[in-house]
Amino acid sequence: MSLKLFELVGADAERPFSPFCWRTRMALAHKGLDCSSIPWRFTEKAAIAPHGSEKVPVLLHDDTAVADSWTIANYLEDNFPDRPSLFGGEGGRAALRMINWWADISVIGGMFPLIVADIPGHLAPIDAAYFRQSREARLGKPLEEVTARRDTSVAGFRKSLDPMRLTLKTQPYLGGDTPNYADYIAFGGFQWARAVSPFKLLEAGDPIYAWREKLLDAFDGMARKSPGYPV
Amino acid sequence: MSLKLFELVGADAERPFSPFCWRTRMALAHKGLDCSSIPWRFTEKAAIAPHGSEKVPVLLHDDTAVADSWTIANYLEDNFPDRPSLFGGEGGRAALRMINWWADISVIGGMFPLIVADIPGHLAPIDAAYFRQSREARLGKPLEEVTARRDTSVAGFRKSLDPMRLTLKTQPYLGGDTPNYADYIAFGGFQWARAVSPFKLLEAGDPIYAWREKLLDAFDGMARKSPGYPV
Repeated sequence: MSLKLFELVGADAERPFSPFCWRTRMALAHKGLDCSSIPWRFTEKAAIAPHGSEKVPVLLHDDTAVADSWTIANYLEDNFPDRPSLFGGEGGRAALRMINWWADISVIGGMFPLIVADIPGHLAPIDAAYFRQSREARLGKPLEEVTARRDTSVAGFRKSLDPMRLTLKTQPYLGGDTPNYADYIAFGGFQWARAVSPFKLLEAGDPIYAWREKLLDAFDGMARKSPGYPV
Repeated sequence: MSLKLFELVGADAERPFSPFCWRTRMALAHKGLDCSSIPWRFTEKAAIAPHGSEKVPVLLHDDTAVADSWTIANYLEDNFPDRPSLFGGEGGRAALRMINWWADISVIGGMFPLIVADIPGHLAPIDAAYFRQSREARLGKPLEEVTARRDTSVAGFRKSLDPMRLTLKTQPYLGGDTPNYADYIAFGGFQWARAVSPFKLLEAGDPIYAWREKLLDAFDGMARKSPGYPV
């Protein structure tokens, strides 16, 4: 059996930084599946077009290509049912569909205006130009203007994580006593930020900070060994 | 076996309106459990004090009293395991802990400033005075001032429901193909608003509107038969 994952990188091919790819990378580790990496950059659309996607992650399982982190998580759960469960049953799968949307909006969407200006510096020139142009067109302003007031706007981001924070005050992980895909959904965002930005997203006393530490250490420190800024 | 539920009512003892009591009422119906109602009002603290709580819902199961809607849901799941599951497995239970916090903040907390001034009119004088005094002390302003701009502020409330809305675009219920406690967590808030306020929280084209209709019809129309305003 062969598993290969297209993972977003920048100038440093050893520094994968996509929050969505990190969800998949953690899910693969949870399932105990070895998977090689195919470094992929923003402007390499041609490399994944044959697999029916314009974005990563794309997972190649023998002759099957699977795109989109949520679709991949379901694929792994259904095709490797004897490995540790990502969802903890069908109720978990259904509920994580909503937690996935919540994290897309509140975790990844909330971090984006705090770290976006730090991303081009990690990209090769052609990718940096593409990233800046496409994102500034969407945002209607320079990236640096978006992040300019992050020292104050971070408070709103932190507050928006209350549902997660309150949960972590009553159970060790979003998945319960042990982590599952609910945790990887949220953690992907933090690992993205860690890879590209020196900005401090969390205060040290925050339960989410302690939770992130545990996930950085999970799977023999897999996420912590990946290049990143101190958190 | 005997099941009794202290449920919040106002001047009309047949109009239960607490969002938390409605979570429990729907959970009991999901489990197929008959449960009688003990109408309870804000100022009747003495009636539930012997059961170790200052708030409702309080469930009396024979000689056992259980307070707090989340605790009750877990109690029902664990004590009636042969009945339909509220959580769909342990992954669901863990994930719903977070969805419960999310709904407390975004659904109930989001609705509160849109409907709070409509509540005293449904209460007996002594309860209306208690409610207004305690809530205005917390809010620092008259209830009517809180709801004054609801015609415009409702847009932010609707937007905050995006994680739920996006989920309902890809699956019929938060619980998946059929409703479970995830749905009742959120629905409790809508049934609260429906009982006390004529304000239109949702637009007719909203997937959440269609979902609410289905839950109003669930269990032989149990929630729709309870007194309320047109939604």
